[in-house]
Amino acid sequence: MSLMTRAEHALSAHFEQAAGTGAPSRLVAAMRHAVFSGGARIRPQLCMAVATACGDNAPQLTNAAAVSLELMHCASLVHDDMPAFDNADTRRGLPTVHKAFGEPLALLAGDGLIVMAYRVLLQAGVQQPERLVALMDNLTTGVGLPHGIVAGQAWECETSADLGQYQRAKTGALFVSATCAGALSCGVAPEPWAFLGQYLGEAYQVADDIRDVIADAATLGKPAGQDTLHARPSSAQALGLTGAIAHFDHLIDQAAASIPACFHRDMLCQLVQHEAERLVPKAMCEGYFKAHPKVAAAPMNAPH
Amino acid sequence: MSLMTRAEHALSAHFEQAAGTGAPSRLVAAMRHAVFSGGARIRPQLCMAVATACGDNAPQLTNAAAVSLELMHCASLVHDDMPAFDNADTRRGLPTVHKAFGEPLALLAGDGLIVMAYRVLLQAGVQQPERLVALMDNLTTGVGLPHGIVAGQAWECETSADLGQYQRAKTGALFVSATCAGALSCGVAPEPWAFLGQYLGEAYQVADDIRDVIADAATLGKPAGQDTLHARPSSAQALGLTGAIAHFDHLIDQAAASIPACFHRDMLCQLVQHEAERLVPKAMCEGYFKAHPKVAAAPMNAPH
Repeated sequence: MSLMTRAEHALSAHFEQAAGTGAPSRLVAAMRHAVFSGGARIRPQLCMAVATACGDNAPQLTNAAAVSLELMHCASLVHDDMPAFDNADTRRGLPTVHKAFGEPLALLAGDGLIVMAYRVLLQAGVQQPERLVALMDNLTTGVGLPHGIVAGQAWECETSADLGQYQRAKTGALFVSATCAGALSCGVAPEPWAFLGQYLGEAYQVADDIRDVIADAATLGKPAGQDTLHARPSSAQALGLTGAIAHFDHLIDQAAASIPACFHRDMLCQLVQHEAERLVPKAMCEGYFKAHPKVAAAPMNAPH
Repeated sequence: MSLMTRAEHALSAHFEQAAGTGAPSRLVAAMRHAVFSGGARIRPQLCMAVATACGDNAPQLTNAAAVSLELMHCASLVHDDMPAFDNADTRRGLPTVHKAFGEPLALLAGDGLIVMAYRVLLQAGVQQPERLVALMDNLTTGVGLPHGIVAGQAWECETSADLGQYQRAKTGALFVSATCAGALSCGVAPEPWAFLGQYLGEAYQVADDIRDVIADAATLGKPAGQDTLHARPSSAQALGLTGAIAHFDHLIDQAAASIPACFHRDMLCQLVQHEAERLVPKAMCEGYFKAHPKVAAAPMNAPH
């Protein structure tokens, strides 16, 4: 079974179990729409891949940990898409939750998904309270204050923000949680795995900035040009487009190099390279530079 | 030390510890505004009162449990006040979070408080993982799907909702969590304490409906007449005002009667009666009926 298939199966099973019976049906539908609309499932796959490298001796707990990460990610997307932030009408080519279900249910769906993430862990972890507590703590670190994704999003509301700090928190924090969760679900020390999450998370944020410039809405499945529109900190703005692409490639190399010696190291390296190509397809970059020769010729700013 | 003082001290200490250092300052300010704006702290007090009745053999854990309940309550108020729901400008006589900090930070402050509630428990409970897991599960039940306060709020978005089910979830669920948390933090079985939370929570919701009709904005510290304005299910609408008041009195009696035999049973009964008078002051009812004699004379509908 591929990691993607395993992630989808786990999501379906845990979502239904955690939703229980008797909840308001439109709320459940809004939450389902948020979770099952074709996500790349990179965080759960990353968690499962690390767990595999660590022996995966408690696969049910790994699955729950992977699901909890994806639910948090989906919650952040739902709230991030709302009019108060991006005011996005589409996500992954479908209407965003507030467009499909209205703002009140989008607000509650996000809240419900955050709490559901904890419930999924609680339902799976009672037999192993120590690993459970470690996983909950790890998840909380990735999402909450001071450096989780909620804080990362909030840097957009400050008058000044350090780009690196913003990116580490906005995306990197949950990637670090993902790789660490893979180790923790096996009862293994998570620290050596944090770097992979950190580099990959930073690469994701840089990729997002690049794609916001070079991709069109159809490719993105959401509106393009949002960073400039909302005057958000962006690598593409700070480094220039070619500088941002070079920075992205460097982060991917660092991510691959950081993987500790382990079983299935090749599989993990492959996952990283595969994601790199999926995120910033070389063909898409070349196509963009062909159409915008002045951008390609512009001097490259050094990453700071 | 009174329960109120203990609750305030615990909130201050745990909020700072859980916020950590380095978080975006406006986000922290928005969360602080949400939590430290003169709340009645009834949920933490209820938790602490039950813990006292159960021996309070882990007071630090009791404090953390009490704080986690209040943080969840504050999170729900922040999101509930936003334009997507009540669109309230004031709360407890102060600007609501979105009025003071803008909608993006209000959205994130609510999210941040939900996650902080878990962090507070995690930081306090590592020495007692079994109690910790039970408390987290209990908190999650009170907030999440299928019957927690998020689900309760979502019943407002369904085309039809049972009034009792709506009220039990919207307010009652977190009250049940509060009484049960008091027992769980002492390692005591929570079931006998659930009824107190259930009756009191239902009484709170009925009181809220009554006050929405009879109190003015200055007394409420928030806009009055919101239920009619938003066409929300309301006891005052369903039972008539006198019927709702009779129903409230009955619920308070049931709450007091449900308290199990324990040390300090008198203190708990007193807390219940004190809250009843604070919620629906007899003088306020009499004043309203004097000013609206037709309402007082209206036939009383039987509660169902």
